[in-house]
Amino acid sequence: MLLAKVIGNVWSTKKKDEISALRLLVIQPLGNNLQPEGNIQVAADEVGAGFGELVIVTQGSPAMRAFNKENLIPIDAVVVGIVDNIEMDNDVAGKKK
Amino acid sequence: MLLAKVIGNVWSTKKKDEISALRLLVIQPLGNNLQPEGNIQVAADEVGAGFGELVIVTQGSPAMRAFNKENLIPIDAVVVGIVDNIEMDNDVAGKKK
Amino acid sequence: MLLAKVIGNVWSTKKKDEISALRLLVIQPLGNNLQPEGNIQVAADEVGAGFGELVIVTQGSPAMRAFNKENLIPIDAVVVGIVDNIEMDNDVAGKKK
Amino acid sequence: MLLAKVIGNVWSTKKKDEISALRLLVIQPLGNNLQPEGNIQVAADEVGAGFGELVIVTQGSPAMRAFNKENLIPIDAVVVGIVDNIEMDNDVAGKKK
Amino acid sequence: MLLAKVIGNVWSTKKKDEISALRLLVIQPLGNNLQPEGNIQVAADEVGAGFGELVIVTQGSPAMRAFNKENLIPIDAVVVGIVDNIEMDNDVAGKKK
Repeated sequence: MLLAKVIGNVWSTKKKDEISALRLLVIQPLGNNLQPEGNIQVAADEVGAGFGELVIVTQGSPAMRAFNKENLIPIDAVVVGIVDNIEMDNDVAGKKK
Repeated sequence: MLLAKVIGNVWSTKKKDEISALRLLVIQPLGNNLQPEGNIQVAADEVGAGFGELVIVTQGSPAMRAFNKENLIPIDAVVVGIVDNIEMDNDVAGKKK
Repeated sequence: MLLAKVIGNVWSTKKKDEISALRLLVIQPLGNNLQPEGNIQVAADEVGAGFGELVIVTQGSPAMRAFNKENLIPIDAVVVGIVDNIEMDNDVAGKKK
Repeated sequence: MLLAKVIGNVWSTKKKDEISALRLLVIQPLGNNLQPEGNIQVAADEVGAGFGELVIVTQGSPAMRAFNKENLIPIDAVVVGIVDNIEMDNDVAGKKK
Repeated sequence: MLLAKVIGNVWSTKKKDEISALRLLVIQPLGNNLQPEGNIQVAADEVGAGFGELVIVTQGSPAMRAFNKENLIPIDAVVVGIVDNIEMDNDVAGKKK
């Protein structure tokens, strides 16, 4: 899953019916040292992530499984958790500073 | 999902039967600051997106779920919504200007 | 889906039975301005794409859906159409020339 | 599958119920010569991988298959094995040194 | 599918039961002109690919379909064929030399 930060919202009125009730967020994936890295994406949210919060985002086919519906919906990114804390040691990874 | 801009159309007569009725668009994914970023792609469209419009594009296996057919079709990108408005604050993401 | 050009063929005798009857092409994905961009790939073909032709390639799980078989086969890229014509305006995308 | 090193942990209390019992690790993918390459990711772990260990990570839809549950869960990366040993010869790949 | 060269082996004793019987190879994806390009990966092998051989690798969900088991296994890359011959003309792709 991606680590990402919530940086915005997207509104769309003309869209597929299956996703009409979803809250859509703009997220910025984070790379090493938790700095922005890679392009923004649109992710659906049901856990209530707020502006500026750090979140865990599941992508691809598994993202559809976050919604308890009989008919799978056309969503390829979804917020599955809001991060409380991260413990990370880049030295272990052997990275040069 | 990707944020992208509709920049063209593709026509194909010799193709798999399952996709014969689909409208195929050329889309340009957008990166941070909503500038073009990454390669163009071909996406199927059922919401009626027009030339130059900003759209939300679902990729991979979930893209097949946008079509209500019993037999899944070989499509890996589909326009799921036309963007009305985006509210975004890159400062929140900690990006350098 | 990818826009790509057919640039070669691959032959394999020792392979999984499920894909033994498939024609395998080497394709070169195209980026903006339809120039080669990104690495070559191997894609299965059932529409009869020829050397040098421009094609539309579906990737991932949806690629398996291009084959009407009860048992899904281990293929992650397939040619779904041969391009007749593309109408594209890069100016709309806001690209610098 | 990715080769990666376990470099941290992530805690989240407000998250989707389906993943509430999962241990979430921060992993650093490794490139050639087993050096860090590419962005960190969050992966679920059931094999008990420890801080600093080299692991094999399955991504995408297959990651969901690592969990024996009737209802598939929204997870797109999972540790499937801890590496004991790697035998590798970059010369064979034709790489310049 | 990827074109790749087999460059090593990986051994893991502590791993998910579903993949315990699989032979795991280290592969180096090849780019244009068949030179190494992109990061190494771990792929399961059932066709008996040897050290230094050129292979075709299926990724993602379709990789699971290479194994005839009722219960899908958490594998996202698998060798589906050993390459006998490649016929390729980069000139056709319009590449600069």
